[in-house]
Formats: sequence, C-alpha cells, structure tokens
Amino acid sequence: MNEAQAFEIVRKALKPRRFEHTERVVSEASKLAERFGGNLEKIRLAAILHDYAKYRSYDEMRSTVLNNRHLPNRLLEYGNELLHSFVGAVYVQEELKVDDDIILSAIRYHTTGRAGMTLEEKIVFLADYIEPGRTFPEAGQVRETAEADLDKGCLEALRNTIVFLSKKSLPVYPDTFEAYNEFAINLRAYGG
Amino acid sequence: MNEAQAFEIVRKALKPRRFEHTERVVSEASKLAERFGGNLEKIRLAAILHDYAKYRSYDEMRSTVLNNRHLPNRLLEYGNELLHSFVGAVYVQEELKVDDDIILSAIRYHTTGRAGMTLEEKIVFLADYIEPGRTFPEAGQVRETAEADLDKGCLEALRNTIVFLSKKSLPVYPDTFEAYNEFAINLRAYGG
Repeated sequence: MNEAQAFEIVRKALKPRRFEHTERVVSEASKLAERFGGNLEKIRLAAILHDYAKYRSYDEMRSTVLNNRHLPNRLLEYGNELLHSFVGAVYVQEELKVDDDIILSAIRYHTTGRAGMTLEEKIVFLADYIEPGRTFPEAGQVRETAEADLDKGCLEALRNTIVFLSKKSLPVYPDTFEAYNEFAINLRAYGG
Repeated sequence: MNEAQAFEIVRKALKPRRFEHTERVVSEASKLAERFGGNLEKIRLAAILHDYAKYRSYDEMRSTVLNNRHLPNRLLEYGNELLHSFVGAVYVQEELKVDDDIILSAIRYHTTGRAGMTLEEKIVFLADYIEPGRTFPEAGQVRETAEADLDKGCLEALRNTIVFLSKKSLPVYPDTFEAYNEFAINLRAYGG
C-alpha cells in the first residue's frame, strides 16, 4: 500500500476533524524522523493509519479483544481511549493487509507506549502528542523538549498522561507505567 | 515479642522525631483497625516496627537486597525511600525473630503498597500516610476519606504518591502502580 492509497482509506474511515489531525501527525512524525532517524516510509504509513479504528463501535472493538489471542482481556479494564490503538493494528493487518511489524507496532502502542519502544513507535507516539492541534499547555512543553531529545519528550508525555489519569483516580494501562519507568530510570532522573 | 519490648527496641533504633512518628502511626493504625477490622495485635506490632530499618546505611540495605533471594534487585533502581520497608521486614524477621507473615508483609509494603494488599497491610500503609504529623494538604484529604472508606483512602494515598513522583519524572515502583490500578479498577472509577 502506498501513501496515497492509505490517505484515501483513512479519509473515508475518519471524520474530517480527525483526518486533519492525522495529516498533522504525519507531518510532525516526518519532522521527528528527520531529526532522530528511523524508517521514514514506515513511520509515515503508521502515522497515516494510526487512528484507522477510531470510529469503530465499542462492541466491535470489545469483540475483537475477546476473540484475538494476542490481545489481553485486561485491555477492557482501562477505559476505551486505548482500545482503538490495539485493535487498530489488528484491523490494519487483517483488512488492509499491512504485514510489517514496525508499522503495526507503531500503531498498536501509539496511545500507551510500552517498555522497549522502537524508534518508530516513539516517533508516532510523540507526534500524536505534540502535533500543533494539541493546544493544552503540557503539549507545548513536550514539543519544546522534543526539539532536542526524543526520549525525554516521550518521558514527559507519558508523565503527563499518568498525572492526568491519576488525578482523576482512573487506572493507567500497565504498558504506560512500564514505559514511563524505563525512560525515567534510563534518563537517570535520580542523578544516579 | 510483646509491645513494650518492641517499643524499647525501636526507641533505640530510631531518632526521637522518628520514634514520635512511630507512636503516632501505632495510634492511627489502632483507630483504623477499630473502624475497619483486622488483627489489632499484629497491626500494632507491625506499626511499632514499620520503620525499624530507617537509619540503616544505604550500603547495608543494598547488600541485603543483593544477598537475599526474596528481594528483587530492581529495588535498587527506584530511589532509597522504599528500601527501608523491604529490608526492614528482613531485619525484623532475622534480628528480632518475628516470624508472622501478617506482620512482616505489613512492614514490607508500608511504603509501596502492592496488588492484593491484606487488610493489615492497608491499615499500616494508610496510618503511615495520614498520621497527624503529616501536615501536607493531600494528607488531610486522605485522612477525611479514610474516615469512611479504607480502600478509597489507599487509592488516594497511592495516587498522590504517583503524582508526586511523576511530576518530578522519578520512577515509581511497580508494586505501587499495581496497587493503584487494582484499587482504581475495583472502585469502578470509570463508573463501569
């Protein structure tokens, strides 16, 4: 599948505002790839397709989780926001016949992150967080950090997500905690 | 070991201010036990001994972690604040010959919490967080919650710890995340 085909598919699958968000994520991801490396072609395709499942019904996504042995059932206990990423990777593979692990995992972890993220995963995750349509103050701070340091940008985005959810006493998906801890330890926040 | 003996031991092991904190934790834990149940005698003994290792040197605690097959090495990657709890349970067992799992686990998890906390663990954990010497605003809020709901009090204390550490980009011990998520999911924060 080439970019033009992928764009046409998501233009039909998404509402106009979400499609514009997707365009901005592709553009932001391209800039990050220029800055930090990674496979540009795969990063762009993952960015184009990252929200492919955004408008699927909860019932369809739930059924996909329950019937796919690669998707843990615990996904259903952490709110609906993260479902579209995990089932999105499944639909992109099954329906669009994209069979590249780099692309699929960048789609799968674009909301939660995970420990051991690939470069491509980090870029799509971060592009989704800092694209110019994200106007909350925390995004601006992360955008600035990401000018110079991809991992630190990811750490700050994950940290903001954890603080946001914790303040509301909402559960935080374990992958997000594990990603956060890995970046925090590796970046030697304790100065150790 | 009876209470008077335990008090004498920690009076010698702790600085006066820390000993006074311990007395307040014992008193707070007793109130919580009256309110929510649990084995009062064991709760009080765990509360008396909970900071037994507070003034051991980092080198001694580190060496205990590295040489005790029940203590995961990852404990050394999450700052020093939580070490005294985990090695404290070891020292209380080995040096003071306390061999009761209820007491030892309440000491072990009094800083981090964990998924599947016992009633006694919850009470010592929460008493340590809300004893009247804790004067930061968040403690007051948790104190109020704990008047009526032990689990919700634990959730709020864990949440505050996670927000506090995350804001500083410090790693959060996995047991704390797992405890937080368990309470958040069980208390149906999503209203689901």
